[in-house]
Amino acid sequence: MNGYSIPKATLGRLPLYLEYLRNLSESHRTISATAIANGLSLGEVQVRKDLAAVSGAGKPKVGYECDKLISDLERHLGYEKLTNAVLVGAGKLGRALLDYDGFEKFGVKIVAGFDCKERVIQMGDTSKSILPIKNLKSYCKENEVKLGIITVGQASAQDVCDKLVECGITAIWNFAPCILKVPSGVLLKQENLALSLAHLKSQLS
Amino acid sequence: MNGYSIPKATLGRLPLYLEYLRNLSESHRTISATAIANGLSLGEVQVRKDLAAVSGAGKPKVGYECDKLISDLERHLGYEKLTNAVLVGAGKLGRALLDYDGFEKFGVKIVAGFDCKERVIQMGDTSKSILPIKNLKSYCKENEVKLGIITVGQASAQDVCDKLVECGITAIWNFAPCILKVPSGVLLKQENLALSLAHLKSQLS
Repeated sequence: MNGYSIPKATLGRLPLYLEYLRNLSESHRTISATAIANGLSLGEVQVRKDLAAVSGAGKPKVGYECDKLISDLERHLGYEKLTNAVLVGAGKLGRALLDYDGFEKFGVKIVAGFDCKERVIQMGDTSKSILPIKNLKSYCKENEVKLGIITVGQASAQDVCDKLVECGITAIWNFAPCILKVPSGVLLKQENLALSLAHLKSQLS
Repeated sequence: MNGYSIPKATLGRLPLYLEYLRNLSESHRTISATAIANGLSLGEVQVRKDLAAVSGAGKPKVGYECDKLISDLERHLGYEKLTNAVLVGAGKLGRALLDYDGFEKFGVKIVAGFDCKERVIQMGDTSKSILPIKNLKSYCKENEVKLGIITVGQASAQDVCDKLVECGITAIWNFAPCILKVPSGVLLKQENLALSLAHLKSQLS
């Protein structure tokens, strides 16, 4: 079994199920589709269908075994093998992400940060190395890096993005507040924290 | 005119239009609905409908005047008056958010951070004050704080959330990787960066 036969939309929800199940207290040995659907504000039919694609159906009146469901989800998401990521732009946000240890349980390891400022490179207050940007290409090759995280400012984000693509990176997570252009075949996920906050404010009465 | 008669879904997209228009080069005096729709990967009909709700229709063959559209969007989103926000949990991510100056152009001002650790409070490496958590209630009252940002760990997130609600805060932006309970009438936006990354990884072939 691998994840490729699973629809993309389903695949996108699998990490959500996994996070939910991992956060359940240890007293839950089994869980029903209804409880998962309620917990995540999803439709029950959708939950049953999604989980059937990775772990078969739950048992009537019992539900799913949590441990088995967790390991099936992890296997389908390829979490047994960590994907290496690099981060470019070791400012405050970049350094916070470098030090965050919650990504590995989702199968991604940020192996190093890069910056062009000598001062930042020498600061050394993160758990991961911060290296000069000129070493990016050789580093990515040697460490089979597939994922790049952009935390530079808007002005240099497209440049950095182009560099990452040149280095063979196929998925980019962009925190700079601008819309980047990537060649087809390269995945791009925009993260705009200011927009999230703006969205929340827009609902405040 | 105010924002209350605009559907919630439309309201949620307004910051996106605003961000897009602000990022256009200054040579754009006017822009068509088609160009906006393409730039944001939205449907053209939806764009026309959304913008009609805040700024009337564009002129045939010319489109919308960028400056007018920007100021209409800002007015509808209430960006003329800043909403005060506090942040609780001044770790690396919290301090990065405290120092980010991109929120104010979306109408939100983080006025102070709070933490329970003496060491963090005295560090003073951010542009905003970090205050002891015991001052939260009086501070929120004095400064008419309406929005709270949670950047503590999972274990204390619900406690902090309850405290913020007690302080009269009606919108919460939560970065802790757990699902919080809030009373009805309080808005909650979950931000799970690990899930975003997991979602990107799940699409990597």
